[in-house]
Amino acid sequence: MILCDIGNSFYHFYKDGEIFKESVDKTPQLFNKKIYYISVNNSATLKLKESNNLIDLSKRINFNTSYNGLGIDRVFACLNISNGVVVDAGSAITIDVMQNSTHLGGSILLGLLSHKKNYNSISNKLNFDLNREVNLNKLPQNTIDALSYASLKSTILIIKDISKDNKIYFTGGDGQFLSKFFINSIYDKNLIFNSMIRVIKDNKL
Amino acid sequence: MILCDIGNSFYHFYKDGEIFKESVDKTPQLFNKKIYYISVNNSATLKLKESNNLIDLSKRINFNTSYNGLGIDRVFACLNISNGVVVDAGSAITIDVMQNSTHLGGSILLGLLSHKKNYNSISNKLNFDLNREVNLNKLPQNTIDALSYASLKSTILIIKDISKDNKIYFTGGDGQFLSKFFINSIYDKNLIFNSMIRVIKDNKL
Repeated sequence: MILCDIGNSFYHFYKDGEIFKESVDKTPQLFNKKIYYISVNNSATLKLKESNNLIDLSKRINFNTSYNGLGIDRVFACLNISNGVVVDAGSAITIDVMQNSTHLGGSILLGLLSHKKNYNSISNKLNFDLNREVNLNKLPQNTIDALSYASLKSTILIIKDISKDNKIYFTGGDGQFLSKFFINSIYDKNLIFNSMIRVIKDNKL
Repeated sequence: MILCDIGNSFYHFYKDGEIFKESVDKTPQLFNKKIYYISVNNSATLKLKESNNLIDLSKRINFNTSYNGLGIDRVFACLNISNGVVVDAGSAITIDVMQNSTHLGGSILLGLLSHKKNYNSISNKLNFDLNREVNLNKLPQNTIDALSYASLKSTILIIKDISKDNKIYFTGGDGQFLSKFFINSIYDKNLIFNSMIRVIKDNKL
């Protein structure tokens, strides 16, 4: 079975249990099987469609939300979670709250790596590599720590504020790293793919 | 008396009680008086120096800190504050903690407007104007609110976390707006210029 979660920067593939990604800027490879997909990126979808047989899973679900314009990747990240907070930490970090299988709302933070790019656009003195080991219990004493502390702590504080005591489900490239800061959390790199597999089974596709 | 606080994007001038700014990308105007200045921007300083008589105030102060590479604008924002937290909210937002006239450390956040630019670089769907009226007590229900909530709330939470119950002194373009979210705070648009004036007096310049 081949699944594809088409994002802003990457095609995220799942093929027979294996996971890999390809840049949307390149011509995607040719598969000789049908590909079940969800997408937030129309042009990348069209490119994949040129040489592959695609089946859109976004039409096959019921999802309760009042949120206007919720990305289909966020929908699928939340789809298997009845109660809890879902954090997908990539180039953006989305935080979504589920209660009794209903989506209550959510927020979109800048991803940890996006901070770096942005600081550098303010001043070339603010060019840095995120210090992931920065001490968050001590006031920073140099620029790299001052920037790392801000990026990390502001992210952690807003996730804490939104999640309160609820269980947090992390996914995405920085999900495992961020989950370390939260006791009541798990990291599941396949959160979206597992929802896609369930939708395929439920719909007998 | 003419003062100039030379930043990454602007010359911030103080002339006989009046305040104005000029882009560092343009040729600065010619003044026929000496200009007392501080600067974090060497090339802009050289440009101002070409046709004006400049006096650097950065060498005229004593400032206690263990922070390595603290920007001179942050030093001057803190210089008049014995105890409290100093927040300069511009293209970056700096947060610095003073206790008994000693600088204990600080952090550097992305400015509120910087968030906007950065979201847009992740996806053109994330192009938005910050909704400064977003309800911070309710989970967002659309993209603009989701982004505005994240920008504002992450900024407010980390300032709260660092400042605890200490008094907060806000300055900079977004200082007045942010100060509204903190009871024990004041906004002083002239925090840096007032320090510069004091240094001039103390040094009998």
